Amino acid sequence: MASSVTPTPILKDELDIVIPTIRNLDFLEMWRPFFQPYHLIIVQDGDPSKVIKVPEGFDYELYNRNDINRILGPKASCISFKDSACRCFGYMVSKKKYIFTIDDDCFVAKDPSGNDINALEQHIKNLLSPSTPFFFNTLYDPYREGTDFVRGYPFSLREGVPTAVSHGLWLNIPDYDAPTQLVKPRERNTRFVDAVLTIPKGTLFPMCGMNLAFDRELIGPAMYFGLMGDGQPIGRYDDMWAGWCMKVICDHMGWGVKTGLPYIWHSKASNPFVNLKKEYKGIYWQEELIPFFQATTLPKECTTVQSCYKELSKQVKAKLGKVDDYFNKLADAMLTWIEAWDELNPSGQQVVNGK
Amino acid sequence: MASSVTPTPILKDELDIVIPTIRNLDFLEMWRPFFQPYHLIIVQDGDPSKVIKVPEGFDYELYNRNDINRILGPKASCISFKDSACRCFGYMVSKKKYIFTIDDDCFVAKDPSGNDINALEQHIKNLLSPSTPFFFNTLYDPYREGTDFVRGYPFSLREGVPTAVSHGLWLNIPDYDAPTQLVKPRERNTRFVDAVLTIPKGTLFPMCGMNLAFDRELIGPAMYFGLMGDGQPIGRYDDMWAGWCMKVICDHMGWGVKTGLPYIWHSKASNPFVNLKKEYKGIYWQEELIPFFQATTLPKECTTVQSCYKELSKQVKAKLGKVDDYFNKLADAMLTWIEAWDELNPSGQQVVNGK
Repeated sequence: MASSVTPTPILKDELDIVIPTIRNLDFLEMWRPFFQPYHLIIVQDGDPSKVIKVPEGFDYELYNRNDINRILGPKASCISFKDSACRCFGYMVSKKKYIFTIDDDCFVAKDPSGNDINALEQHIKNLLSPSTPFFFNTLYDPYREGTDFVRGYPFSLREGVPTAVSHGLWLNIPDYDAPTQLVKPRERNTRFVDAVLTIPKGTLFPMCGMNLAFDRELIGPAMYFGLMGDGQPIGRYDDMWAGWCMKVICDHMGWGVKTGLPYIWHSKASNPFVNLKKEYKGIYWQEELIPFFQATTLPKECTTVQSCYKELSKQVKAKLGKVDDYFNKLADAMLTWIEAWDELNPSGQQVVNGK
Repeated sequence: MASSVTPTPILKDELDIVIPTIRNLDFLEMWRPFFQPYHLIIVQDGDPSKVIKVPEGFDYELYNRNDINRILGPKASCISFKDSACRCFGYMVSKKKYIFTIDDDCFVAKDPSGNDINALEQHIKNLLSPSTPFFFNTLYDPYREGTDFVRGYPFSLREGVPTAVSHGLWLNIPDYDAPTQLVKPRERNTRFVDAVLTIPKGTLFPMCGMNLAFDRELIGPAMYFGLMGDGQPIGRYDDMWAGWCMKVICDHMGWGVKTGLPYIWHSKASNPFVNLKKEYKGIYWQEELIPFFQATTLPKECTTVQSCYKELSKQVKAKLGKVDDYFNKLADAMLTWIEAWDELNPSGQQVVNGK
């Protein structure tokens, strides 16, 4: 079901689309008019001997577990297996300034007028316009056409700050946890909220990895999706973990995080029983993790994302190690991730505060 | 132009509608199906000898300047004259739990399906459902039908906290400051954003008094609209001042502030040249006021709104007195306001933290 829209591809040579998958990528057919001009990085999870079919005409590179092990050597231990957390390997091997990542059960949504939504274009708009984390604008994103800063908004803050992350939403199947899925099996998200807004400084939020874009040069090293899945006591907290770490670092660096548009169409709910098994430790751990991240401050000396992230790893070990030994392992993996990142992205990639 | 909708009036005996005005209240005709069951408090600004006509069938009490002077005596000095800031007198004389306040140039807006929006009903929904100031929910108000808390939202926070304030928005003429009005004379707000959200703890916003509801029993004493208009060096910052004070106190008390729906139709832009004259001091003062309010903390001992407000007055005098002598006068007026409030609302009205 291809759309007849032929949009101008923006940032065609500066953005990679990262897709974690275990199956043939038929879902790309629907995205063809929007994605075909871009380069794809496919991270194949699970059995590396399986052949993943990619529809013709797409420009892509594909990495399976053997590739990850070969490229990272012993440091491959920081990349999760049998969990979509493996997608962050794609962020690491990209050479582009921007990343858009999407799940393979996400399709093109329609706006209230019935037009196909070009999710990627909206993410790029979000990333290319500033954010306003220091004061809330009641008419939402003031840089959008037809709107502005309202009366009482300080003029000194109207230049905004660079946007590091654009978090998109989902029509149809909402991103609920297992308990909510179990309680509300039939709930569907039908509400199209025509807004983009900056999440204020000091406020945490649940970042979902299903429909997400970011400025890799700014915040890439903080976009580690943790240790999940095979051999780990937890799953489905990969994007949450990245979101908490990333937000604390963006707040420290003075960068913005936007949420809202664009919507994608999330086609099917994952199994709530399987999800409960993956999530249940996270459900009680998060009661301690969130206060930890809310209380975290980074010292002034941390002027690069890498140094912020290493400091965060230290604090994770010091303060969360007692919650469960898993967090000691995770703190070590955070350091391994940064080492691997710097190895694959050698020079000139350290963006300094205030860039 | 009356609507054929006949809604059930919710909280009919627990809510007053406060309207500041200098003219006949013909605008009420359009609101008749929604407002007629409620009691109105009309605060007549300007010349008290002028007779304000109220359409038949509305239940109201009307106060002009002579009434304010008679009721408050010397304390009437805290109520602004020749500025819509005088509306806060209506909050003080109300005996109801909830207040909805609206400007007389605001009309019934239509939703995207063309139906009249019952603004009051939406405000009441906002006030009667909890707020979530401690963590951001990406699908907006989780208590709305068809939505919930998303994956990764801590379960311990899902009960929410009492909602103190509901801030509604405006279609057609947006609430811009004079410089923006001058630069964008033709901009109209046509975007209907179908969302209500809690403004996170620690985040300030520009509160507009045009379309506003609040729980008077919870936050009433903090809803002072300051000294504006006649004899004062500033205008059009009455609602902003109240918003900053109120938000700091709600954050301290653990109460929520919502913004978004409902929309009203704001019919005409005020004169930008007149506005510039009223605003220009505010435009530079706010650059110091906002950092002041962002840095303000209230001591644990402040367990009532009144005690919070008195403490805030003390800090205003100590820290903003040097910005301009006006803030010394304002700090004194804040104390006078609290005295007058307590006089008119003698007993059992002090709501203690954690109510």
